Amino acid sequence: MPRYKLIIEYDGGPFVGWQTQANGASIQAALEAALTRFTGEAPLVHGAGRTDAGVHAMGQVAHFDLEREWEPGVLCRALNAHLRPDPITVLSASLAAPDFHARFSATARHYLYRIVNRRAPPALERGHVWWLPVRVDAEAMHEGGQYLIGKHDFTTFRAAQCQSKSPVKTLDRLDVERYGDAIEIRTSARSFLHHQVRSIVGTLRLVGEGKWRPADVRKALEARDRSACGPVAPPEGLYLVGVDYDARLEPK
Amino acid sequence: MPRYKLIIEYDGGPFVGWQTQANGASIQAALEAALTRFTGEAPLVHGAGRTDAGVHAMGQVAHFDLEREWEPGVLCRALNAHLRPDPITVLSASLAAPDFHARFSATARHYLYRIVNRRAPPALERGHVWWLPVRVDAEAMHEGGQYLIGKHDFTTFRAAQCQSKSPVKTLDRLDVERYGDAIEIRTSARSFLHHQVRSIVGTLRLVGEGKWRPADVRKALEARDRSACGPVAPPEGLYLVGVDYDARLEPK
Repeated sequence: MPRYKLIIEYDGGPFVGWQTQANGASIQAALEAALTRFTGEAPLVHGAGRTDAGVHAMGQVAHFDLEREWEPGVLCRALNAHLRPDPITVLSASLAAPDFHARFSATARHYLYRIVNRRAPPALERGHVWWLPVRVDAEAMHEGGQYLIGKHDFTTFRAAQCQSKSPVKTLDRLDVERYGDAIEIRTSARSFLHHQVRSIVGTLRLVGEGKWRPADVRKALEARDRSACGPVAPPEGLYLVGVDYDARLEPK
Repeated sequence: MPRYKLIIEYDGGPFVGWQTQANGASIQAALEAALTRFTGEAPLVHGAGRTDAGVHAMGQVAHFDLEREWEPGVLCRALNAHLRPDPITVLSASLAAPDFHARFSATARHYLYRIVNRRAPPALERGHVWWLPVRVDAEAMHEGGQYLIGKHDFTTFRAAQCQSKSPVKTLDRLDVERYGDAIEIRTSARSFLHHQVRSIVGTLRLVGEGKWRPADVRKALEARDRSACGPVAPPEGLYLVGVDYDARLEPK
């Protein structure tokens, strides 16, 4: 059975999240329905990151198996036609190695968190950014974030409902940069705990507002206590930007 | 009576355009309603550019008079509170010179037209860009656009319903640049004819697709004939970015 890899962009606003749930439309279910309408088959679609309700993706990765082999470009265009009018688009489809797994083969995940930092609420970017009306210090946020780089027990930054076996993760990147009224936070790791990025961003906000010193982030990390975390940032600023795999597993 | 100047951002998607009309919600009417709710007065709000249905603004300018003098920051925040949940936001409010007129005092208007040029339809930017699935040559589009710079009779690029007394306008800038899958067209003039930017962009698309040579844009201009224009580009890619005024009229 040929295995296919998709790279997917979506606006998470109207969805309950990536994963199929009883209480509303999911991105996974929309993709599976589009696949069934086009191919007549009913494959299970596996995603690299189980994004929460309201979280967006510029480069989510998914895989699935089909009985029939399709030319990937044909599959891509057909899926996009069948996904309408949902705000989900398949950027590329390719044949994957038989042992490629969107979730378990991933070697790095890259997230972007977007903040609009100005008095006036966003009109054009509503639902696509976190609005912080009070000026925050992006350099202090960056400085605070550097205490999280490396291998740590991230219990403080982990949702109560997180299903990961271990709270130990290795954070490879956490950069906070200001561009005028916009603040972009870019972070990368092999994998993240549930709500880890939003918990970190919500904590760094306290640093940006001057309520915490940058070094207080280290204290919060070392507390290994969920109650040491700042208020979790909302989903609408978060984007799964891309997922990396071993070159051996990448389509030629 | 104090005169106020506003700089406004909006998502044009849900509106019939800037100007109040019988057939639906306008940005002008939303601002007037918010002003009345806050001040109890019923001023007429004048905009610098009467953007069409679906056209967005990052920096529309408007003015109006009130009996009472308000601290501009208070007015700005109150308007934003009363504008909710409309996707309209007042970026700044200031006291203007008594002879300041948002439309007639303008010395330059700056527009941006955004294109997404890739096979996959936009999901995140839907309604905020023009999707062109076939690859276009942005350099050729730029080259074609340069024939329009300067003072010309723009009859070819003017909507039938345009109410301007003269079709002669002076185009100061028309730059087409590619950034990956995105194409940005930036254009400036003291004033534009109705549908002029969208008519130009729709014509440059033909150049980008290789159906026209860049020099054919000059022929279309010289024809002074609406039928020589390419199909008009849709409103959702167009943004009124900003409006300039004489320094004398700018708030201190």
